[in-house]
Amino acid sequence: MKTVGIGILGLGTIGGELVQIILKNQPRIREFYGIDLQIRGIFVRDVTKKRAIDTTGLPLTDNAESIIEDENVQLIMECMGGSGTEHTYPLIKRAIELKKNVVMSSKKVLALHGQELLELSRKNKSVLCYDATVGGGIPIEKVVENSFYYQEIRKIYGILNGTSNFICSNMFLKHKSFKQALKEAQKLGYAENDPSDDIDSYDALYKAEILALMCMERIFDLNAVKPRTIRGISNFDFEMLEEEGYTIKPLVSLEIKGEDLYYIIGPAVVSIEDNVVSGVDANNNIIAVIGSKSGELSFSGQGAGKSPTASVMFDDLLNTLLYRNNFILYNGVKPFREIIEDNTALYLHLKVNDKPGVIADIAGLLSHMGINIDKFITRGKTNGLYDAFVFISNENNIDRDALVKGLKKQHVRILSLIPIVYEEEI
Amino acid sequence: MKTVGIGILGLGTIGGELVQIILKNQPRIREFYGIDLQIRGIFVRDVTKKRAIDTTGLPLTDNAESIIEDENVQLIMECMGGSGTEHTYPLIKRAIELKKNVVMSSKKVLALHGQELLELSRKNKSVLCYDATVGGGIPIEKVVENSFYYQEIRKIYGILNGTSNFICSNMFLKHKSFKQALKEAQKLGYAENDPSDDIDSYDALYKAEILALMCMERIFDLNAVKPRTIRGISNFDFEMLEEEGYTIKPLVSLEIKGEDLYYIIGPAVVSIEDNVVSGVDANNNIIAVIGSKSGELSFSGQGAGKSPTASVMFDDLLNTLLYRNNFILYNGVKPFREIIEDNTALYLHLKVNDKPGVIADIAGLLSHMGINIDKFITRGKTNGLYDAFVFISNENNIDRDALVKGLKKQHVRILSLIPIVYEEEI
Repeated sequence: MKTVGIGILGLGTIGGELVQIILKNQPRIREFYGIDLQIRGIFVRDVTKKRAIDTTGLPLTDNAESIIEDENVQLIMECMGGSGTEHTYPLIKRAIELKKNVVMSSKKVLALHGQELLELSRKNKSVLCYDATVGGGIPIEKVVENSFYYQEIRKIYGILNGTSNFICSNMFLKHKSFKQALKEAQKLGYAENDPSDDIDSYDALYKAEILALMCMERIFDLNAVKPRTIRGISNFDFEMLEEEGYTIKPLVSLEIKGEDLYYIIGPAVVSIEDNVVSGVDANNNIIAVIGSKSGELSFSGQGAGKSPTASVMFDDLLNTLLYRNNFILYNGVKPFREIIEDNTALYLHLKVNDKPGVIADIAGLLSHMGINIDKFITRGKTNGLYDAFVFISNENNIDRDALVKGLKKQHVRILSLIPIVYEEEI
Repeated sequence: MKTVGIGILGLGTIGGELVQIILKNQPRIREFYGIDLQIRGIFVRDVTKKRAIDTTGLPLTDNAESIIEDENVQLIMECMGGSGTEHTYPLIKRAIELKKNVVMSSKKVLALHGQELLELSRKNKSVLCYDATVGGGIPIEKVVENSFYYQEIRKIYGILNGTSNFICSNMFLKHKSFKQALKEAQKLGYAENDPSDDIDSYDALYKAEILALMCMERIFDLNAVKPRTIRGISNFDFEMLEEEGYTIKPLVSLEIKGEDLYYIIGPAVVSIEDNVVSGVDANNNIIAVIGSKSGELSFSGQGAGKSPTASVMFDDLLNTLLYRNNFILYNGVKPFREIIEDNTALYLHLKVNDKPGVIADIAGLLSHMGINIDKFITRGKTNGLYDAFVFISNENNIDRDALVKGLKKQHVRILSLIPIVYEEEI
């Protein structure tokens, strides 16, 4: 019987669940795969800390490097958590240099170093699995891993961040304020004390990078993309939009046109009835891909959580047992020519002076920029100001900054500026 | 370099697409897997018939058995199509007896003989893959194949038949009659000349059998289930239901309660806003599973079509290259104790005599059966008859036949009787 020694980095909620799944299935893996799985070491920062699972007899250590270097460890499973990469990245890299298989969950490490790590694993003929880095319990990598054999995926869209989705859903369905919704999310454990990574869409950006890698075999410079925050969205926005049949969702949209990437990463106005993402609420995620052969496939489920994530990592473990060092999965990545934010349809909430000619001036400015007004709805005059809710078509994809600059010259205050996604290809 | 000889059964739309994918990827499989894929034989009923693809140099034969018996064939890929199993089943069985790997697409063969074929493949240590039998381009088997290691799936629901979904969608969205919608489906190639298998829900029944096998590791006797037809659904139904916020979808719902299976296979009344299946239209499919660890995961995409299906079969081919005769995937199946149709909530469209006391009698009858009336809406009195649209709660799950019998005694004509699905667990 062949033995595979496993080193586990991290024993938080995900690591604890993962250890239990491995231990529970040792007999079955022996029977089905003819392989004896042995946990050789588990890295924790504090070996004395009380854990959620019973750690009696488990080989805990606070020396991560010793696990990586252990010649009796053939597989490293990383579930370190946290938001940093300084410790995690070198450990994963070293494991691959030593030709060990790796199952990882750190999206930041993969987003920042994915191409390097995958090239290295290919060169060393070891396997790097990363399904747990995006989509929670949705095994998206498993679904698309062989796509490159028979099709191109040129469009991906969805909701990848449960925190932001929970907040938007609460604001829409329960009419909570942003502040109340965030507080509720924190109370339920769907948001951190400092929720910036989530609500400023950096989490979504890293996941977008990973999905482009996974599904499109493409890479883009993270610094070339502006993730947009969901802060500043108001109940006004939700109410006005709902009257018109729309809602707001934290969206990731990536589309290849020619050799360029068009993207939206942040809040987007979507049709309640016609957009598949609108029905995905609470902290759930959805990932949709459009493949040249399979057409549109969409997957939804819990975006995070110990059980969904640990399950996907165990699936990856089984993959490494199959691939076993004589198989190359990674097909390389290409860059894009240009990375362009898609602002071709925008929703704006403006505060406008109640003076004659003001609307005409705004309309004139927009038309001068080649921008058409599709809807212009005014509400609630107070103190000589009223709210204007505007849908515009910006076919030349004028940059937001230029648009904002122009509007400010007209003494217009911009409360919200959110892209509209009118249609998802079915 | 290892060679894997492939025998392909069938060269229709799916087979043709599959052959092209294999030929296109021979170089890449050599590079990535170190395996030389060789197509040794392709079975067709008529070698002279003109094909959609260029068959120059392809080893066509009308002798299927010779392909199965060929010692240079290690993998059989079945895409025979058709509605019969008499030829397909023995060929697949013989291949497994000879310890060959098999990738199949015939849902009828798998639904009728799945347990036998899987047990045989386990005994012979060969691999039987069947992702193409259900869900079209949705690689559902890939997603759930390892679930049994870490969780139980006790509920599956979705839309599995594109023909029926197309018809229901057309009736709902475009207000077409059943007849018009069926005609349109046939014109677009979404329905056969004889559409019975699809619209009488036998196709859905076979797929339900396969999903129970795949996801729940359970088996049930096909004869113990009553698939319900979508014939007889009228625009009246759609209009009345839409006013109340409901629509009708061709549903498959399987739920394990204790050791019993509760099912709905056929049309079901579902909330337009609150049910994830309501947004899945045209000929698309959706499959949702509720796992004890992953929670609810749902997958939607094209239910059929040459490209989606051939892609999934190629994915299965790659699986067989990995598993390579030293690996057992099949974990066995258990039967259910009882198979029970779920009639706990029903929608009825009745024709009722316009006489005093009639409603009281109906209400009395229902109450006598332990059935509560949730909604009772009357419309359009003509010729002393009017339409009654009724939502009932049938908590004791009184059998439909008993209910129908009782109502007929009240001289009530039943135009529609459709289960209501109020809530899908999120």
